[in-house]
Amino acid sequence: MTVTLSEVRPGAYYDSVVLMQLQSALADLSGVEDAGVVMATPANCDLLAASDLAVETKAGSDDLLIVVKGFDQESAEDALGQVDALLNRRRGAISQEFRPRSLDAAIKQLPESQWVSISVPGRFAAGVAKDALNLGRHVFMFSNNVALEDELDLKNLAQEIGLLMMGPDCGTAIINGVGLGFANAVRPGPIGLVGASGTGLQAITSAIHNLGSGVSQAIGTGGRDLSLEVGGTTILQGLELLSEDEETEIIVIVSKPPKPEIVTKLLASALRINKPIVVDFIGYPPAARRIANIHFASGLEDAASLAVKLAGDSPNLGVQSSFGEGRQKGYLRGIFSGGTLAYEALLGLQAFVSPIFSNAPIYEYQRLSDVWESKNHTLVDMGEDEFTQGRLHPMMDNDLRLRRLAQEAADPEVSVIMLDVVLGTGSHDDPAAELGPAIMAAKESSQKQNRNLEILVIMVGTEEDSQALIEQEESLTAAGALVFQSTIEAVDYAIQRLAVPSPLRGKSVELERFKRPLSVINVGLEIFYDSIKAQDAEVVQVDWRPPAGGNERMMALLAKMK
Amino acid sequence: MTVTLSEVRPGAYYDSVVLMQLQSALADLSGVEDAGVVMATPANCDLLAASDLAVETKAGSDDLLIVVKGFDQESAEDALGQVDALLNRRRGAISQEFRPRSLDAAIKQLPESQWVSISVPGRFAAGVAKDALNLGRHVFMFSNNVALEDELDLKNLAQEIGLLMMGPDCGTAIINGVGLGFANAVRPGPIGLVGASGTGLQAITSAIHNLGSGVSQAIGTGGRDLSLEVGGTTILQGLELLSEDEETEIIVIVSKPPKPEIVTKLLASALRINKPIVVDFIGYPPAARRIANIHFASGLEDAASLAVKLAGDSPNLGVQSSFGEGRQKGYLRGIFSGGTLAYEALLGLQAFVSPIFSNAPIYEYQRLSDVWESKNHTLVDMGEDEFTQGRLHPMMDNDLRLRRLAQEAADPEVSVIMLDVVLGTGSHDDPAAELGPAIMAAKESSQKQNRNLEILVIMVGTEEDSQALIEQEESLTAAGALVFQSTIEAVDYAIQRLAVPSPLRGKSVELERFKRPLSVINVGLEIFYDSIKAQDAEVVQVDWRPPAGGNERMMALLAKMK
Repeated sequence: MTVTLSEVRPGAYYDSVVLMQLQSALADLSGVEDAGVVMATPANCDLLAASDLAVETKAGSDDLLIVVKGFDQESAEDALGQVDALLNRRRGAISQEFRPRSLDAAIKQLPESQWVSISVPGRFAAGVAKDALNLGRHVFMFSNNVALEDELDLKNLAQEIGLLMMGPDCGTAIINGVGLGFANAVRPGPIGLVGASGTGLQAITSAIHNLGSGVSQAIGTGGRDLSLEVGGTTILQGLELLSEDEETEIIVIVSKPPKPEIVTKLLASALRINKPIVVDFIGYPPAARRIANIHFASGLEDAASLAVKLAGDSPNLGVQSSFGEGRQKGYLRGIFSGGTLAYEALLGLQAFVSPIFSNAPIYEYQRLSDVWESKNHTLVDMGEDEFTQGRLHPMMDNDLRLRRLAQEAADPEVSVIMLDVVLGTGSHDDPAAELGPAIMAAKESSQKQNRNLEILVIMVGTEEDSQALIEQEESLTAAGALVFQSTIEAVDYAIQRLAVPSPLRGKSVELERFKRPLSVINVGLEIFYDSIKAQDAEVVQVDWRPPAGGNERMMALLAKMK
Repeated sequence: MTVTLSEVRPGAYYDSVVLMQLQSALADLSGVEDAGVVMATPANCDLLAASDLAVETKAGSDDLLIVVKGFDQESAEDALGQVDALLNRRRGAISQEFRPRSLDAAIKQLPESQWVSISVPGRFAAGVAKDALNLGRHVFMFSNNVALEDELDLKNLAQEIGLLMMGPDCGTAIINGVGLGFANAVRPGPIGLVGASGTGLQAITSAIHNLGSGVSQAIGTGGRDLSLEVGGTTILQGLELLSEDEETEIIVIVSKPPKPEIVTKLLASALRINKPIVVDFIGYPPAARRIANIHFASGLEDAASLAVKLAGDSPNLGVQSSFGEGRQKGYLRGIFSGGTLAYEALLGLQAFVSPIFSNAPIYEYQRLSDVWESKNHTLVDMGEDEFTQGRLHPMMDNDLRLRRLAQEAADPEVSVIMLDVVLGTGSHDDPAAELGPAIMAAKESSQKQNRNLEILVIMVGTEEDSQALIEQEESLTAAGALVFQSTIEAVDYAIQRLAVPSPLRGKSVELERFKRPLSVINVGLEIFYDSIKAQDAEVVQVDWRPPAGGNERMMALLAKMK
């Protein structure tokens, strides 16, 4: 018959590594079947129960709970009696070099440090990070369970003064060849990464190395950076750094799929960077393999192999440098006869321009309230029921589309019109004969108003079709249209005219300082001190204790007195 | 001052082509600025208003409304006076060859016909299709605005008797080289397509031709075939046909993104087909470029070029023939330390097995109610807050994962366990030393129960990491694990063990009969009669009129009397 005994140490703070080591030392004692050493949060108490180590206790989240299951009463009691000795043995093992007790003192010891790595418990982390930023240091924050409000404050502060605030909950980074947090040993190389996904960055950097290429920088941002609230502050800063860094030839962005607004903000900004960019929003539906300089990867493995392949190609291959030249103000209007083509165009456009409306929307908030009247960017699918009841499909009968074309062309806010023309059996036997003159008239009337209206035509068909693809193309080109062979080619052209990159507020991060050899102050888990040291980077460990012994009221008072 | 006049012809039925031609003939008359000829549905009245042709009228959906805007009263009156003459001119132009008035009569005229093509107005279409199926003919239904209930009845009937019911709202097909509905002229070749997306199929077949390859069959299904209600009946029949057809080497599936349940049903069935399959669910997030024999395309252009590339490769390259061999009953349990790896694994698995639960779900209905207790297929991400508060991250501390591994291994319903191991700085310094013995113990205890428990390990890292990738791999392999270098490789293996293909109910479609030269009875738009004839296929046009003059009550009576 086993016996389970427990002990509570109220308000005791220990590094999680110490707790893990104590638990495993207790479990290794003879006569002990299992042991648990945890801060007594509700989740941890559930966990003890799941391991058959449940005890009745009034201990709370700030209390250390030690549970021992012995094969008999004596063994269990004996094990609990050894707790202090085991803790002291651990303490004795810590290297006895001098350790500053505060961040200020650590910075005096290592004035060239540009980074503070923070892995203290979540509720203390924001305070440490604020001090670090105010002392002019970039922050790598491994700690999780940090309030969103604190994250917003810290990221705003960092951006104002031109510093990076990576995290909270930032699992990984490789800065100038040195790994912070969890990171893999990879060779230096031409691929720079930025991402809100820790093991995603690790999997891609490892795969890049295993494929024979290498990494310039890997900038983690923390999982919430691409949330609507934070809005991608750190990822946009990281992108800017990587775009300026000459050693970075290819950029990889990795994240779980952000909200559509954030996708648009990020991709419109990525468009203006004159480097190929591989995007893996894991679980985001890409409209194409490539649009402009953006290569959409499907999965981590694919992201790595795409990046390595692009790095092996001649520099800047596949990069559109025309972005910004001839940029148009104004709106796009799409007038489609093919439902799938309209859907694919919407899917591609919505990644770069926003808001965009349609009678056949992908998201309900994109629904056009009045299908007869466009607003902002709009795509209409004229093959939908509301346009075809009791009349021919628009692929047979151009009447409605011609009327809509004239209506859109007359709108002074419109600068790009997109049309599809689907050839083949059943379709109109000479669409260019009707669309050509209408396109010419639309172009002419807009020129009279000093507008440069562009009309893009997506043409589907073959030279064997009775309407003859090439003749149709030539005829529409002569009328002033730009003719494309696929939806995505037309989308590619349109977004380079229309997308609005998101300007960074605040001060840019200084590249020269960022690229100096890494020098770090570590506050929190000693594991990270050890790993930075093992990579031959300069590092100082702060002998951190919770302020005011972890007493929240006292902490608040102390913070006010600063 | 222009004058707008109108005329209503109650309950008059005209082919939409006739209406289009009448409208354009009226608009071409001298003295006429514009004209509208429509069935007076609310949508069409809106449309007239949008074209500045609004009139006050009591005409309803079954009434023909003719509107003329003349430059003066006389011209407008004169134009309306010419309506009958214009309609008669059209009638005279129709070829005067004998035309059967009923489907039965048409089939007597063309007994070898296997297909009936239907493009009559939606409310009459289901009746014609039911007759056609009962007469043993496949149906291609271009008509839209058909009730979902009718679609379900028709597709169930078709499946029971081994016929294809393509549509309603089926825009396109290429059967044995002949296009039905809207279709492009493409050369014959090794690529067979099936899809719920009309212009999607047209864009891909055209691109395949333009890339130099060709098409064996293109089977449209109608836009609702992949809805939850219809459940993919026609697409599954089409897949079965293409899998049996020796001329089809590569299969392409195209559709807007179906509901997750339907994706799983379709892809699990596609897995067992011993041919490469390119899937383009436009707007569906693929977890990888390829899983087993399924190649996920991003966009129509990409689908075409992937298919052409695969067709150019040696036959069956990239095809996993191991599906079904050593198939496992039972569930998969994933125990992850890396959040992104868990997410990617879930994304990949959910496309093939269902339901699957997680504490970090992609869809809310996948949420695991008790994170300590798995059910069905389950992935847990042990890096989430509920597992890490007040303790070390599972990449540093294996304790919780080892406990969970033992728990899952003891569950007799479990046949596959998936784990990740992330090497590098900060991570545990020898994970194999702890996981290896646990894996060995789990394998041994399952063998004692005559279970074949498989343990898959996804390993992230490089040979330069201090834990040394290859040693870790060897050590876990020796313990009995299968080690993979990426999430997707592990998912690929797992789904071939666990996915359950969806069996077709009813009778298979007979391939030999399907592949006979196309012979069609056309009911509805003469445009389609013309285009089938132009392709040198046999076709008979039915001189169709609405039953009972379109009177719904009489139609119901007639239907009862059959």
